[in-house]
Amino acid sequence: MRFCMPRLMPFVLLLLVWLGPVSASEAVDRGKLLSEAGVYGTFAAFTLDAEWAKEDQATRIAYLTVLRGVVEQHREKIVIDLYLMRGLSDYADLMFRVHAVELREAQNFLLDLQGSLFGRHLKAAGIMHGLTKKANYVPGLPDQMKADLKTVSEPGPRPYAIVIPISKNTDWWGLDPDKRLAMMKEHTEAALPYQKTVKRKLYHSTGLGDIDFITYFETSKLENFHSLILALEKVKEFQYVSRLGHPVLMGTAISLPEIMEILAQ
Amino acid sequence: MRFCMPRLMPFVLLLLVWLGPVSASEAVDRGKLLSEAGVYGTFAAFTLDAEWAKEDQATRIAYLTVLRGVVEQHREKIVIDLYLMRGLSDYADLMFRVHAVELREAQNFLLDLQGSLFGRHLKAAGIMHGLTKKANYVPGLPDQMKADLKTVSEPGPRPYAIVIPISKNTDWWGLDPDKRLAMMKEHTEAALPYQKTVKRKLYHSTGLGDIDFITYFETSKLENFHSLILALEKVKEFQYVSRLGHPVLMGTAISLPEIMEILAQ
Amino acid sequence: MRFCMPRLMPFVLLLLVWLGPVSASEAVDRGKLLSEAGVYGTFAAFTLDAEWAKEDQATRIAYLTVLRGVVEQHREKIVIDLYLMRGLSDYADLMFRVHAVELREAQNFLLDLQGSLFGRHLKAAGIMHGLTKKANYVPGLPDQMKADLKTVSEPGPRPYAIVIPISKNTDWWGLDPDKRLAMMKEHTEAALPYQKTVKRKLYHSTGLGDIDFITYFETSKLENFHSLILALEKVKEFQYVSRLGHPVLMGTAISLPEIMEILAQ
Amino acid sequence: MRFCMPRLMPFVLLLLVWLGPVSASEAVDRGKLLSEAGVYGTFAAFTLDAEWAKEDQATRIAYLTVLRGVVEQHREKIVIDLYLMRGLSDYADLMFRVHAVELREAQNFLLDLQGSLFGRHLKAAGIMHGLTKKANYVPGLPDQMKADLKTVSEPGPRPYAIVIPISKNTDWWGLDPDKRLAMMKEHTEAALPYQKTVKRKLYHSTGLGDIDFITYFETSKLENFHSLILALEKVKEFQYVSRLGHPVLMGTAISLPEIMEILAQ
Amino acid sequence: MRFCMPRLMPFVLLLLVWLGPVSASEAVDRGKLLSEAGVYGTFAAFTLDAEWAKEDQATRIAYLTVLRGVVEQHREKIVIDLYLMRGLSDYADLMFRVHAVELREAQNFLLDLQGSLFGRHLKAAGIMHGLTKKANYVPGLPDQMKADLKTVSEPGPRPYAIVIPISKNTDWWGLDPDKRLAMMKEHTEAALPYQKTVKRKLYHSTGLGDIDFITYFETSKLENFHSLILALEKVKEFQYVSRLGHPVLMGTAISLPEIMEILAQ
Repeated sequence: MRFCMPRLMPFVLLLLVWLGPVSASEAVDRGKLLSEAGVYGTFAAFTLDAEWAKEDQATRIAYLTVLRGVVEQHREKIVIDLYLMRGLSDYADLMFRVHAVELREAQNFLLDLQGSLFGRHLKAAGIMHGLTKKANYVPGLPDQMKADLKTVSEPGPRPYAIVIPISKNTDWWGLDPDKRLAMMKEHTEAALPYQKTVKRKLYHSTGLGDIDFITYFETSKLENFHSLILALEKVKEFQYVSRLGHPVLMGTAISLPEIMEILAQ
Repeated sequence: MRFCMPRLMPFVLLLLVWLGPVSASEAVDRGKLLSEAGVYGTFAAFTLDAEWAKEDQATRIAYLTVLRGVVEQHREKIVIDLYLMRGLSDYADLMFRVHAVELREAQNFLLDLQGSLFGRHLKAAGIMHGLTKKANYVPGLPDQMKADLKTVSEPGPRPYAIVIPISKNTDWWGLDPDKRLAMMKEHTEAALPYQKTVKRKLYHSTGLGDIDFITYFETSKLENFHSLILALEKVKEFQYVSRLGHPVLMGTAISLPEIMEILAQ
Repeated sequence: MRFCMPRLMPFVLLLLVWLGPVSASEAVDRGKLLSEAGVYGTFAAFTLDAEWAKEDQATRIAYLTVLRGVVEQHREKIVIDLYLMRGLSDYADLMFRVHAVELREAQNFLLDLQGSLFGRHLKAAGIMHGLTKKANYVPGLPDQMKADLKTVSEPGPRPYAIVIPISKNTDWWGLDPDKRLAMMKEHTEAALPYQKTVKRKLYHSTGLGDIDFITYFETSKLENFHSLILALEKVKEFQYVSRLGHPVLMGTAISLPEIMEILAQ
Repeated sequence: MRFCMPRLMPFVLLLLVWLGPVSASEAVDRGKLLSEAGVYGTFAAFTLDAEWAKEDQATRIAYLTVLRGVVEQHREKIVIDLYLMRGLSDYADLMFRVHAVELREAQNFLLDLQGSLFGRHLKAAGIMHGLTKKANYVPGLPDQMKADLKTVSEPGPRPYAIVIPISKNTDWWGLDPDKRLAMMKEHTEAALPYQKTVKRKLYHSTGLGDIDFITYFETSKLENFHSLILALEKVKEFQYVSRLGHPVLMGTAISLPEIMEILAQ
Repeated sequence: MRFCMPRLMPFVLLLLVWLGPVSASEAVDRGKLLSEAGVYGTFAAFTLDAEWAKEDQATRIAYLTVLRGVVEQHREKIVIDLYLMRGLSDYADLMFRVHAVELREAQNFLLDLQGSLFGRHLKAAGIMHGLTKKANYVPGLPDQMKADLKTVSEPGPRPYAIVIPISKNTDWWGLDPDKRLAMMKEHTEAALPYQKTVKRKLYHSTGLGDIDFITYFETSKLENFHSLILALEKVKEFQYVSRLGHPVLMGTAISLPEIMEILAQ
């Protein structure tokens, strides 16, 4: 026996087609913003309020169409990724990751989002910012390690995304640079075996919030991600980590049409 | 003098019969998922909102029937256990324990649950995930201890379930493996006397949330469980535990029809 | 000039008489449950929601009559004491202390309470459990001290009740038993002068929640209670206390009819 | 250009006159309760709920008249002071300071307050209790210092009131009394220059809540108060302070008619 | 394709013109209050409640006009700056920075604000106070450094504003003044390279709240601000910082008409 929920896909699709996609020429260069230094990464997690579920379906679909409009409009300037946290986290229901050259552009997007008919049902659970920078320690690493670090991760979808805020204690910042480099070499060595199955990205946050780094992970193999973190907790550098997570944010990567379908139900 | 509450059992049963049970052939292999390594365990605790008690009884029963539908549907793929925390804990009213081969399957269940008419009255109090793994230290233990660990717990119901999240400090992860093994031997010895009356299960959580382990206990003799934890706090390994509980989650194991009867009142 | 509130006592009494008291033969043996080892003590503190004050008086009286019914029904199996925290604490408005041979019986009472028309206005602020055990250290104390410990507290009402959750740090549990005994002797000596005016009771909580002990005090002389705690903080054993209070729960002992009168206003 | 708010003073006064003041003979001896040892001081801070602002003005005035009635009635037994925290603190909107010979009397006042039509809009933000005691260390201080401590503070209004909860660590309580006296002498010396412009009062709280002391300050010169606290943080005794504030409660002393006028707007 | 929101600017302007600006002669001397010692700085952050978005636009505009009236009225006595935090912070939606000679004047403004029709939709997220003082350590610095500190920041807008509360540990306050000066010299040296692009202002808060300092930053180059904080975390003095941020408050400087336009949408 199957207990079936009504599926709204056809109706939702109809509405979405009407709005149409942003043409490629108008959108910002995603590859560039996701790879260059000097780009701001904003992670904004939201919960849906209790009123959302009480709106009738037609209203919810109308509001989700507004969401799509806001996202599409800002995609001309910034890169926006979506994650579904509901069902995996008690912290939030959905998360936006925004890459922007100027932090004001991320703010403008979130202002339009929170001010929209859809956004009135959102409550900000957590907003974090970080800045991409050239790798601090890589230039000092052995050549073989540098080569290994260039291994690209396996192709195919990586549905699980995990965001871990990190702070280091005051001892770390006071250490001799050579000691820091030696420890980061050990850290990098411990992480290399997971290079293929767990994709990582680092953002620097000191001053932009109450953390020093945002680490972002994508994987299809959660068990490997678990092993990676366990390996990193066993190296010396980890003794200088004063905060790891709190919260760890886990979600699944999701497209705009998919999240619209789920939230319309 | 007895102060009687109306009992709804007959009406509830009538409704439940109509839905019918999942046939054995369709359900996932419970024994396998509860014993094998590489399985994800999700503990999701929820509170019922203040609106729930204001719904009239017929509506509550209808919503609980939806709950049953959602649970039965997902039992084809995942193992779902229920616990009643209300009356024992200020943290939550009920808890689901889910065992799944892929964490996405647990997320899909909780998405359907939270999106259902019943789920609109639920507020996520806490969601934790862990992974079952082959025992780390058992291979290094003496043979007699290995044999003792195979003692099965006494038959009969074990109504009390306790979930204790655990984290270890950075010193632990930096220790020499031999030292860790010696301490885990002492830890295991301290626990052996409670093997028969307190059933334990361990989940590894590093990276999947803000804890390192989820420990799960079942017993009919709470006093023995108390003595077990006290014994474990006296061994050396406990000096490396940076978090035990916070919160300790206590509930009573309960079947779907039982919880439906209680919540329908 | 007096600013008078209407007094509802007569009306409330009328209703209460109709329900009638539990006859002595049906009620559980209070003396036994309050003195023996192996009994569970549950402290459940609740706040009244904002809706309570908006109900009209007749409705409030009807709901309080339901409260009385629930309490009287369960008094057949468990011992229930009530405390008024409102006006003394920002943590909760009222607190139930339950003594039961099986923790499930306390859960059943709280389930019926929270599921009742009165309970729908309650929000659980904190629920703690402990177990009474034979005194750990008394057998090792000098005979004179043992005799002194038998001094009964002065007769008469002890309106103030204070509940202090306590945890000890990992060093304590790792100490040599002789050292622990010596320190508990000093602790007991410091407390003896207050034996007559401050009644104490100890519950063991390790594993049953996030604390190690619940200490319960009753007195009519709060200043003596303050001096007692101050004396206990000056002995060596206190260096091993990692948590004292947080929260300290203070209330006044109150009968069911009294609390009904206060809450009906 | 002035942007004017309607001023309700005349109407409010009219209502207040009708109730009339408590005659001097009926009121408790304020001077005695504020200077003697063995008196309980209760600090109860409240926030006004969001519904308050939505009541129409006539209703608000009626409710504030009830507040006045409750305060006046209890002033026969206890001393009640009021402070306006709104605009200075995010912690609460108003604070009552109550001096009573028995803590039950403070509880009775707060019960009547919270049960009143006005009180239904209040939410307890924090309630703290302390006990006045004879100065612990003064007898051991040099005669000149004793004389200096008798300097009375300058006449005139001291509008700013600051309440700072304080706890000392376990090392302090374990110190040799002579060492404590020497440190309190240094502490007293550091405070003396502010004796004239900052009035202080000390309450002992150990056991009555989660703090050891409540320190209360009144001043018209906030900058001097800032310098006083800074001076006290530089003496050795401060190394034993484990908690200072968290929260610091700041408000302005205000009369009942003044607060009625402000809240009626 | 552009997804357009209605722009209300013309209507809002119409209303604002009607009220008219405060003439220069009536307003307080902004330059003086922002540069002199002995001035109180209040940072008050607020969130807008969920009801705000449900008000229709005409009502919102009317309420925002009230906001303007309250701000203009108090600008006769105090300096008021506004910041938009929404979209950059989960802590609050907007922040007021107030400079006043007497803290009561800031309280009076916030009282009028919170009591206004607009203010009924505001919830205080955090209120902090500090006092400007003559630089403690500058007199002891080398002449060249003193000269360098006089470098004015580059002209042009500095849209980003960051407020970081800071506390120092008890060791700092116990240090020899010479050691403190030497460390502040190193601290100042580390900050000098950012003098041109990041404007700083310091407020002393000890006793006025639960922090020791409020540091305020303005910049158009967030990356430089990030580098400045990173540089300050590497000097010895940082080992004595017990709290930095928690929360860091980030916003963008905004004029009254701009915030009215954004909130009217």
